[in-house]
Amino acid sequence: MARTILSSATKEVAIGFDQPFVMIGERINPTGRKLFSKELKEFNYWRVKKEALAQVEAGAQVLDVNVGVPLADEALIMSEVIPLIQGLTDVPLCIDSSVMDALESGLKAYKGRPLLNSTTAEEEVMERILPLVAKYDCAVVAISNDDTGISEDPDVRFEVAKRIVNRAADYGIKAEDVVVDPLVMPVGAVNSAGKDVFRLVHRLRTELGVNTTCGASNIAFGLPNRHAINNAFLPMLAGAGMTSAIVNPLHEGLVPAVRAADILTGNDAGCANWIKAYRPAPAEGESGRGRGGRGGRRGGGRRRG
Amino acid sequence: MARTILSSATKEVAIGFDQPFVMIGERINPTGRKLFSKELKEFNYWRVKKEALAQVEAGAQVLDVNVGVPLADEALIMSEVIPLIQGLTDVPLCIDSSVMDALESGLKAYKGRPLLNSTTAEEEVMERILPLVAKYDCAVVAISNDDTGISEDPDVRFEVAKRIVNRAADYGIKAEDVVVDPLVMPVGAVNSAGKDVFRLVHRLRTELGVNTTCGASNIAFGLPNRHAINNAFLPMLAGAGMTSAIVNPLHEGLVPAVRAADILTGNDAGCANWIKAYRPAPAEGESGRGRGGRGGRRGGGRRRG
Repeated sequence: MARTILSSATKEVAIGFDQPFVMIGERINPTGRKLFSKELKEFNYWRVKKEALAQVEAGAQVLDVNVGVPLADEALIMSEVIPLIQGLTDVPLCIDSSVMDALESGLKAYKGRPLLNSTTAEEEVMERILPLVAKYDCAVVAISNDDTGISEDPDVRFEVAKRIVNRAADYGIKAEDVVVDPLVMPVGAVNSAGKDVFRLVHRLRTELGVNTTCGASNIAFGLPNRHAINNAFLPMLAGAGMTSAIVNPLHEGLVPAVRAADILTGNDAGCANWIKAYRPAPAEGESGRGRGGRGGRRGGGRRRG
Repeated sequence: MARTILSSATKEVAIGFDQPFVMIGERINPTGRKLFSKELKEFNYWRVKKEALAQVEAGAQVLDVNVGVPLADEALIMSEVIPLIQGLTDVPLCIDSSVMDALESGLKAYKGRPLLNSTTAEEEVMERILPLVAKYDCAVVAISNDDTGISEDPDVRFEVAKRIVNRAADYGIKAEDVVVDPLVMPVGAVNSAGKDVFRLVHRLRTELGVNTTCGASNIAFGLPNRHAINNAFLPMLAGAGMTSAIVNPLHEGLVPAVRAADILTGNDAGCANWIKAYRPAPAEGESGRGRGGRGGRRGGGRRRG
């Protein structure tokens, strides 16, 4: 049973078949955000801090950190924001870049065991990324495309994922440290996109024994009322066997949807996390012992430590 | 591929593996509602009408009709409300009673092909209900308990369901006209309740080839923030292969969750139903041709005719 162990200096999070679904917060990412990009270029990190705290407060168990801005010194920025975020929160991080130097400077600065985002099955990419994963003994996101691009055929994507897992093994990287992203197509363009990914996740879990993740919101690309699609998609992914996803935990309803899925897959023993997050606040004058002032807010509150 | 055809005088709804998930509105039911009970006893049906219209407006494709009030003449009430509801709306109905006479008077009054709710595998119940289903050529909900009660073991519940399907066949009732309710346990009491029902639905679909339904809200019994659990549970049920459920379509987020599941199971071709329900309203002054004034409300609107 695959268990991907991520950690910070003081906290461990396991991605696994018998674990609560891991939400990796996606908000530390300047893509398409003008102000955020400008601030990063000027080494101004207030928004990084704000997004980190808000996502952890909302329920993210891991934070993705992407500081990719064209023409900026991404390696330097990464080396600065990693310790900054680790000083603010104890959740493990996912170091996310398409720039080799930025990945390595992030790994150097990181305390604990991060998730590296990402490799594909492209030969050149695997040759650069996998030695890094081995050297720093971290976990890695493996995206199911190769030098020929992204296949619409989920069975081809399965084979591509298998190739990465096998190649990783050549570097001494265990399958449990490869978290496969099966790639989610927009269902507005590919009508079978939902079904395809559910079947693919099931195969990855049962045949390869690996954990899985995805950028879930791609499913709803181009459709109206996108959040409602995402909020249904995540429980369905969890039901199909997916074990983590890169999401925006600030979107209304998303965190409760994922936590409800944990109850329903049997991965929230005794519904303890659920009850902790959502039990009603005590009435005025009633004893609030052991609850904390905010833990009981309906629809909000914190999950763990 | 099982297809359960329900109809009113003018409209057909199919429950099926390749069909949009069918929401059976549960609100015409006085259980636990004092005023509603009192009104029914006095043959005052304004609330029946109100609940019928509101549920169809919200997106219910079928309405459950239960008028069970202790000491009231349920058969008479049923014979009156069925034509009343059929005069208001064209969705097919589910005639729901534990009283034999009420079921039969409902069937007599009904125009089209209703769903009869319900039989169990109790000998005495099957002997009364199944001849009625055969006589009126309708479909029937089959609840997976028998004379020994409700088993916590999903494999036992599967065998119980199989017994009903086989017995129905003796009366000439096709498997496609038996909609099995696998029974949902409260996950707060039985930690595996979600997983159990997903596996059971899968078996019922693949091994017995039958459609399925359930009273979904039972899953969250006793837990806080129940609606959020329901709204995650329904897409997961659809993902596991369930084809209908008895739900409250007025609960916030429930209808969009089910419709999103349709997209994701591939049962909303081209996302047509979704786009029809949720595309943004045209801006002021823009042409609203073919949209209607309200069809584009975000999170609301109507689905079909």
